[in-house]
Amino acid sequence: MAESGQKLANGKTRIDFATDPSRYRHWKLGVDGKIATLTMDVDEKGGLFEGYDLKLNSYDLGVDIELADAFERIRFEHPQVRVVVLRSGKPRVFCAGANIRMLAGASHVHKVNFCKFTNETRNAIEDASAGSGLRTLCVINGTAAGGGYELALAADHIILVDDGSSAVSLPEVPLLAVLPGTGGLTRVTDKRKVRRDRADFFCTTEEGVKGKRAAEWRLVDEVAPSSQLEAAVAARAREFADGAAAGRAGTGVDAGASGIALTPLERVVTADRRDYEYVSVAFDRAARIATVTLRGPDGPPPSGDADMVSQGAAFWPLQLARELDDAILDIRLNECDVAALVFKSEGDLRTVLDHDNFLDAQGGHWLAREIRLKWKRVLKRIDLTSRSLVALVEPGSCFAGTLAEIVFAADRSYMLIGELDGDNRPAAAITLAEVNLSGELAMCNGLGRLRTRFLGEMSAHDKARVAIGQVLDAAAAERLGLVTFALEDIDWEDEIRVFLEERASFSPDSLTGLEANLRFGGPETMETKIFGRLTAWQNWIFQRPNAIGETGALSRYGSGRKPEFDTKRV
Amino acid sequence: MAESGQKLANGKTRIDFATDPSRYRHWKLGVDGKIATLTMDVDEKGGLFEGYDLKLNSYDLGVDIELADAFERIRFEHPQVRVVVLRSGKPRVFCAGANIRMLAGASHVHKVNFCKFTNETRNAIEDASAGSGLRTLCVINGTAAGGGYELALAADHIILVDDGSSAVSLPEVPLLAVLPGTGGLTRVTDKRKVRRDRADFFCTTEEGVKGKRAAEWRLVDEVAPSSQLEAAVAARAREFADGAAAGRAGTGVDAGASGIALTPLERVVTADRRDYEYVSVAFDRAARIATVTLRGPDGPPPSGDADMVSQGAAFWPLQLARELDDAILDIRLNECDVAALVFKSEGDLRTVLDHDNFLDAQGGHWLAREIRLKWKRVLKRIDLTSRSLVALVEPGSCFAGTLAEIVFAADRSYMLIGELDGDNRPAAAITLAEVNLSGELAMCNGLGRLRTRFLGEMSAHDKARVAIGQVLDAAAAERLGLVTFALEDIDWEDEIRVFLEERASFSPDSLTGLEANLRFGGPETMETKIFGRLTAWQNWIFQRPNAIGETGALSRYGSGRKPEFDTKRV
Repeated sequence: MAESGQKLANGKTRIDFATDPSRYRHWKLGVDGKIATLTMDVDEKGGLFEGYDLKLNSYDLGVDIELADAFERIRFEHPQVRVVVLRSGKPRVFCAGANIRMLAGASHVHKVNFCKFTNETRNAIEDASAGSGLRTLCVINGTAAGGGYELALAADHIILVDDGSSAVSLPEVPLLAVLPGTGGLTRVTDKRKVRRDRADFFCTTEEGVKGKRAAEWRLVDEVAPSSQLEAAVAARAREFADGAAAGRAGTGVDAGASGIALTPLERVVTADRRDYEYVSVAFDRAARIATVTLRGPDGPPPSGDADMVSQGAAFWPLQLARELDDAILDIRLNECDVAALVFKSEGDLRTVLDHDNFLDAQGGHWLAREIRLKWKRVLKRIDLTSRSLVALVEPGSCFAGTLAEIVFAADRSYMLIGELDGDNRPAAAITLAEVNLSGELAMCNGLGRLRTRFLGEMSAHDKARVAIGQVLDAAAAERLGLVTFALEDIDWEDEIRVFLEERASFSPDSLTGLEANLRFGGPETMETKIFGRLTAWQNWIFQRPNAIGETGALSRYGSGRKPEFDTKRV
Repeated sequence: MAESGQKLANGKTRIDFATDPSRYRHWKLGVDGKIATLTMDVDEKGGLFEGYDLKLNSYDLGVDIELADAFERIRFEHPQVRVVVLRSGKPRVFCAGANIRMLAGASHVHKVNFCKFTNETRNAIEDASAGSGLRTLCVINGTAAGGGYELALAADHIILVDDGSSAVSLPEVPLLAVLPGTGGLTRVTDKRKVRRDRADFFCTTEEGVKGKRAAEWRLVDEVAPSSQLEAAVAARAREFADGAAAGRAGTGVDAGASGIALTPLERVVTADRRDYEYVSVAFDRAARIATVTLRGPDGPPPSGDADMVSQGAAFWPLQLARELDDAILDIRLNECDVAALVFKSEGDLRTVLDHDNFLDAQGGHWLAREIRLKWKRVLKRIDLTSRSLVALVEPGSCFAGTLAEIVFAADRSYMLIGELDGDNRPAAAITLAEVNLSGELAMCNGLGRLRTRFLGEMSAHDKARVAIGQVLDAAAAERLGLVTFALEDIDWEDEIRVFLEERASFSPDSLTGLEANLRFGGPETMETKIFGRLTAWQNWIFQRPNAIGETGALSRYGSGRKPEFDTKRV
């Protein structure tokens, strides 16, 4: 069902995001005290799809799934690590970027989702630095081209070997007629703040920039001759390990802290359902709806730090976040025909809130912090999912605190007034927690979802703050502006059915464009620029004959024939 | 040569941007003291192209060219005007938006450029408010759908008649499978700060929102029953006229100030040239290059305010700005095969600088201010022109002050070191003025071009400030980071030729995407969001079969047949 335009390798029928270091084919993760080394050594024959070889450390989605997993593991399983040294296991090449044959053969849907996931992975590397003080040091020992350099750009510090030939480059425009769309352009202008005319030169020069000019132009942070490269890397890693430690006081991590094991998620996959312990996804294929139900915790929060650590991956907020993330990715990549995600919840509002309060109270502990940061990433993944997002707040639901963010992430929310006939569950209610107003779970635009919601009415934000901890029924939630519509029993089913039918009847493309504009009001950040601006232009180019047509650059790449372009500018 | 996909009406072969009120077919401009009334009364049979009627005040580029002209005239010819009342001359309809048949029949190139120009026109309406204190009051007497409501959104204040049927709406998504791409989505979220779930409802509801709900949701500023509409408009116009006057102290405009006439530009158009008095455009069609040469003033600046006003439209900075604007628009719409604009200048550096200093000195005078604001708009138009922009700083050139902005707007600039053999003109030099560092000529991102250029090195910005007024030779300009490359005589021709050939060989689409990302580093504003994010998604949608395919919504509009969509989400 994967909409790839290509056949998955090894007879698979779905793209699976679950992996662990014992199954990595492309990366090696080594941990030595405060320093982890993550080595890219892509298995040429390990492509996710049939039909191409992953030469020269080029990558496809499968390679990136392992990279994303490795960073998750470093954060949860090795909390004592302060620095990740990101490097290549191959001589004279760091990474040649996204595999061109994979791109040329992939469907538009897969190309777009591939780029989205790789962007999220790079953002997560930066989130580890900003949120967890985990620095990444990238060692470029040879070619770092296109997506290879874009990967390096996600690091805090880039060391380039100065050997007269090694270069960084973004050759997409001259070579492939597409953009460096995995954040490359945005990070060049907005993270590294390269002068724009130099950026123009750099991004239109196939061979890239090497040595001292690369450093002078701010494309890398330092260069080192081959003979001194390892010494420079070791010195810098040590410096960052010690420096980062100083910056992480009070996070409860000492060099001896032991992590928790991210045990495999248990999933029962059937034709029309995915069932995890706390998440269920039910597909109504005729209506093109996936209903995602989140379940609250079974009991009270842990008694303290030690109990939380001992629960580990089974600790409810962490397990739920991991399950939800997996479910969302599965829908994005494997269920392209789904028009709307309908979020529901089941559980005790109070117990959910107790868990948020527990995480607040343990905010100084590394694991509590990592769990919140994980939720931040998962919620961003939802914000960026191009499907209609709907939240139904019904009797027996538990949208409190962190879970209430899902209501605010939705394009629209409906809340039932009172109870349903013959239903003895408690009336629908929402409860806010500090976390809804603190900005801890900020969207890509750097603002919390309530803050973004109330851009035009700061007073509404203040009123929401006053309501923290209250059990808000439908009337109160509507008055506070927390839900779109509060509906009576008699209107509930019809209104929602009509709305969902209508959504399913609209052009999916126009909805994708609508969401990209309506969901991210207010300030722009590097992340919103990447997803809103860079990605949109890349998607446009990915539709243009000059890239994907028969004589386009992507199609002709490697054929020995030059592309032929329609020369008209738009 | 207009790349429209349609045939221009009345046997024309080029789209002409020059007009004046005596030639308007779609608007009536009335001025009464401080209040101007601009009435939209579109001539159904006055379409720019053949093949459609402009029913219900729907518009095409021709209608918008008149609107843009009307605002220019109000600013220059009627400086005493404080308020523009923007309204419809037709009963029960304000404006039905962009004409769908025109859109459905237009080429991708024309659609994109049409949207860009209409966006620039709406931004100019807001610029008149922010820069000149000229408020716009929009009166919606009936349907304001799609581009009709987007036009209203550019106003400072919207009054909607509350008659039980009149509504504002953005029905693009449900009706046409495209976006409200003329700033609509961005202004809903970022200007009017409508709550995002309400925006979702509004933008997916064909019939729109009317009456009190429109005001409550912040979609309009006030509603008035039919019987009180005219009284409400008159009261509000009066209030704004008086309020705006108070806010414009020191701008040298009193109620009796008389404007200057924007006399027609004189152009000599031949197959491969356009010659104005101070601007020449030469096309090298084989190389796909347009060389735009700007000429400096013939003499010193005026002796004072009165002299400036009496020179009027012939005053060098104003005439040059108008000519340059016309030349750029002509290339954008009529010369789509041009890959690069090469900017050159000829004249006396010192005299150009004297004109900038004159405008600085007269900054309190309305005309000096309007001329600077005009340059701001023209330079933004250049920033947003999707062609490779190159500046060549050669002997005898006069890139000083305002003209130096063109060097900073270029994707790349080349400057000759010393003199050319047998050339007795002065060596190439650049001179900075206060205006290059003041932010007065800010780009869409709200920052000056030098500030944007030096985002990564504030110290470079400070050094540039120190150099104000100096005649900077190539070495100095390169050292200060003002040009990309300083070249010796011996390398000059070859380097530039190779560069331009290379540019012409790249995919035009990838360059368009590159420019949209590299030219606007730093902060985002509503304008950069409109051009960078909204436009990019719209362009993508304009390429998708769900909009433009045989069974797509744009193609099937009005055919009585429902569109058929590929339901896959990307």
